[in-house]
Amino acid sequence: TRSRGVVTASSGNHGLGVARAASKLGVPATVFVPNEGYDDTTEAISRMNVPIERVGDDRLHTEQYARLIATKSDRTYLPPYNDPAIIAGQGTIGVELMEQLPSLDAVFIAMGGGGLISGVGAYLKAVAPNVEVVGCSPAASPAMHRCLEAGAIIDVPCRATLSGATAGGIEPGAITFDICREVVDRTVLVGEAHIAAAMRHIIGTHHMLIEGAAGVAVAGYQQLASEYQNKTVAIVLCGANVSTTQLRKILAG
Amino acid sequence: TRSRGVVTASSGNHGLGVARAASKLGVPATVFVPNEGYDDTTEAISRMNVPIERVGDDRLHTEQYARLIATKSDRTYLPPYNDPAIIAGQGTIGVELMEQLPSLDAVFIAMGGGGLISGVGAYLKAVAPNVEVVGCSPAASPAMHRCLEAGAIIDVPCRATLSGATAGGIEPGAITFDICREVVDRTVLVGEAHIAAAMRHIIGTHHMLIEGAAGVAVAGYQQLASEYQNKTVAIVLCGANVSTTQLRKILAG
Repeated sequence: TRSRGVVTASSGNHGLGVARAASKLGVPATVFVPNEGYDDTTEAISRMNVPIERVGDDRLHTEQYARLIATKSDRTYLPPYNDPAIIAGQGTIGVELMEQLPSLDAVFIAMGGGGLISGVGAYLKAVAPNVEVVGCSPAASPAMHRCLEAGAIIDVPCRATLSGATAGGIEPGAITFDICREVVDRTVLVGEAHIAAAMRHIIGTHHMLIEGAAGVAVAGYQQLASEYQNKTVAIVLCGANVSTTQLRKILAG
Repeated sequence: TRSRGVVTASSGNHGLGVARAASKLGVPATVFVPNEGYDDTTEAISRMNVPIERVGDDRLHTEQYARLIATKSDRTYLPPYNDPAIIAGQGTIGVELMEQLPSLDAVFIAMGGGGLISGVGAYLKAVAPNVEVVGCSPAASPAMHRCLEAGAIIDVPCRATLSGATAGGIEPGAITFDICREVVDRTVLVGEAHIAAAMRHIIGTHHMLIEGAAGVAVAGYQQLASEYQNKTVAIVLCGANVSTTQLRKILAG
């Protein structure tokens, strides 16, 4: 099956990771991304000579299409979040957090499909259940946030957001939903202006580029900071997939 | 003498390092920076509650003044480059390079006072003398480059450059000059537009902020890239001290 190759749908780190692994191992891969945006990720994947196909207006549609194509063409589908092994991989961030911050009180993590927070949260709840896991979402695209409120995976309207990596709906039956219900202690929504300000803050003080999704986690913390004084808090900066065009806009804001 | 504190003159990583170490150890410190610019570094140092004083239009004048003040007030002066221990510290980058790239053929490094390239170059020439050490300078402020050409430490007119960390003249009697004469195999001058383009390139493809001095090393490599095909080349990205104002200008360029 390896020679037939793999298929994934992801506009962020997962797509980059699959493309890199496939290119190193000489495995054929196709990465599906939504119709609009994500130029930064697609350029990076193209540089690895991995083919990209654009389909769907929402990440959820892109994923469903990619899964269908994989099944039809008998290739392995590598889901971006709805998969135990992928979630376990994200959990290694939890391991690093506890190694580096044994006194951790809370961690702020962006929620898109919920893979990242499921992995980190499941590990933390197993080894340090008192660590508060805070799920941060853009108000413009709050799929998992609304699903958790509703107690079910529901259709959530999503608007454009700086946080492309967390934009879009949740796949029906996604295992991340039940994990999030167990491991996410608290959720917070942030506006686009606050996401941009958070990105500028990290760029200006830490001289580190971060993507919108990481800005969501920073903005989520900033919104609740007064409640976490004298606590040991970690914010997961989950990526730096930001185009120079987007960066220009953020710095101008 | 520790309780009397330390004095340094630096508008870059050295100033930041001294401020951080002093602040962690509770040692009083004063950082002198040139009259104009370097707002990014001074803000970062201020955040560590370390006092900053502005004096001199050129790094060289700032250094000479800081040394004088340190002597008069019986405090320890920590030179930014003209000191064997500081140079040896920079040499640890050479150690890391050889550990990570045993097949290294050449390394591109920005030259300001010459501390960084002296440390890295001295180590490389001791353990891997065939590695080519390439010193990169902005054409607008090429002090060490011109001194090496002249065979003596001379007064070199310096204009404004994106590479603040390498701007300014060389202290008379600087030990880096003789070391550079021994360890620098080749020098290259780069223009401001190429420095800006190199910074945009690293930001756009590696999603890493770099400062102008790091852009000088990247631009130096880009200028000579055709001569290094199929070679293992390292470029030292020596820092990310760039203000959002400067970043905005670079991205607009």
